[in-house]
Amino acid sequence: MKIIVNGLGIIGASLCASLRAAGHEVYGRNRSREPIGYALEHGYIDGEATSYDGAEVIFLALPPEITLRELTQGRFPDGAIVSDICGVKVAAEEAVYAERRNYRYVGTHPMAGKETSGIRSASPDLFARANLVVTVSERTDASAVSVVRRLAKDMGFGKITTCTAQEHDRMIAVTSQLAHVVANAYVRSETARSAHGFTGGSFQDMTRVAGVDEEMWTQLYLYNRENLLAETDGLIRRLEEYRDALAAGDGEKLRGLLREGRLAREEYLKKQ
Amino acid sequence: MKIIVNGLGIIGASLCASLRAAGHEVYGRNRSREPIGYALEHGYIDGEATSYDGAEVIFLALPPEITLRELTQGRFPDGAIVSDICGVKVAAEEAVYAERRNYRYVGTHPMAGKETSGIRSASPDLFARANLVVTVSERTDASAVSVVRRLAKDMGFGKITTCTAQEHDRMIAVTSQLAHVVANAYVRSETARSAHGFTGGSFQDMTRVAGVDEEMWTQLYLYNRENLLAETDGLIRRLEEYRDALAAGDGEKLRGLLREGRLAREEYLKKQ
Repeated sequence: MKIIVNGLGIIGASLCASLRAAGHEVYGRNRSREPIGYALEHGYIDGEATSYDGAEVIFLALPPEITLRELTQGRFPDGAIVSDICGVKVAAEEAVYAERRNYRYVGTHPMAGKETSGIRSASPDLFARANLVVTVSERTDASAVSVVRRLAKDMGFGKITTCTAQEHDRMIAVTSQLAHVVANAYVRSETARSAHGFTGGSFQDMTRVAGVDEEMWTQLYLYNRENLLAETDGLIRRLEEYRDALAAGDGEKLRGLLREGRLAREEYLKKQ
Repeated sequence: MKIIVNGLGIIGASLCASLRAAGHEVYGRNRSREPIGYALEHGYIDGEATSYDGAEVIFLALPPEITLRELTQGRFPDGAIVSDICGVKVAAEEAVYAERRNYRYVGTHPMAGKETSGIRSASPDLFARANLVVTVSERTDASAVSVVRRLAKDMGFGKITTCTAQEHDRMIAVTSQLAHVVANAYVRSETARSAHGFTGGSFQDMTRVAGVDEEMWTQLYLYNRENLLAETDGLIRRLEEYRDALAAGDGEKLRGLLREGRLAREEYLKKQ
């Protein structure tokens, strides 16, 4: 199956690498030349694509705003499957279905990544056992979804969850977006600036994703403003509970809150 | 060197295992029998100790309140080095120096652990390359500190930082305590309850240490109330900045905050 991936960052290049490793014919497209050379050298792609011509499946692995532009202005072959990996899905879907399209749209969001970006962070096994969310609406072509799911299996994804774009955006606010906000806010503590020598795994993990690409994440946050606001408010409210218990020296209350969190975590792990 | 470790949980048993692997003579003491049997079976200890008699160095790897009780009521041999691994150090030091002691006290805090507890989570390499904080005051015996530092090297610790108990407690509020509060508060999101299938590394890392032993951590938090309050307030204030920028749809502001966090993280990594 001839596949074109537009955007050879960590996700796009890992899409290429894992799909090609599974035997697909994969072409890469990228604004700048250097990642194309890198992808060729590392065997991530069969060659460069300068248009979408001849592709059966196209993945858009581009920053949010460019993804929306491409979904509305890209020149895709008739009937091609076009899938974006953008981290917000309502905005993408709205852009697609604003008009009648000649292509079949399937939204995806790989729940994988690293705290680094760019093609040098890509790898053929980035998606191994990772979660993938596939978003669908009543306008989605069922056979296109089947193809995307099959390709996702080829890429090594573990659990593949199908849901609406609305559901995706609501969930992602807490499973990804807020985690990046918190890590970023956490590491800005003045005390933390002189913390080396005092840190262990909990600090490392808490701040691992603090170094976000501020341009991309600002876009993602604004596209999912209401959901992220609700989750941020919820977390602030909960933190204030611990804060108040602490200020009051209320051990009973503190124990109760910590217990609730422990049980929630255990519940979550059980469902894994 | 004959060493006795009181408390065979994850930390205490790992102290035994790493010290014995380095050739020391190590005896374990524990309220319940089962961990003693486990430690013997796994070669973590040379035998059981029922008193501190004959020990040159004693490690107390007990919950905070029991540690304070033991530091004030334990029957230690004259001149023995007694080191607690309690996560708060001002309270421990105050307990020790409330009276003249027949032992030499050195506070330690291994910045290592797991999201699980108990002897089954222990291992001889738990401390490999981990940070250790050693707390000292003008009453601390310098030769006792040297012995503890040497033993810490034997246990595999990486960076060993010496500071006052006050400095330790101030730093630990942000490098460990608040991280546990945040993870615990984070996982209590109602949305997160149905989040499996939508999670990636950022959620896993953010909530990894959520399942704290609420009894122990309540004690730790209350002993370090003021420092933890200051850090919790600071984080809430910073989260409100992102929240307000988001509510106002202020991309410029959001980008600025995220950039600040990214730079703080880069600064931190450079110092590592």
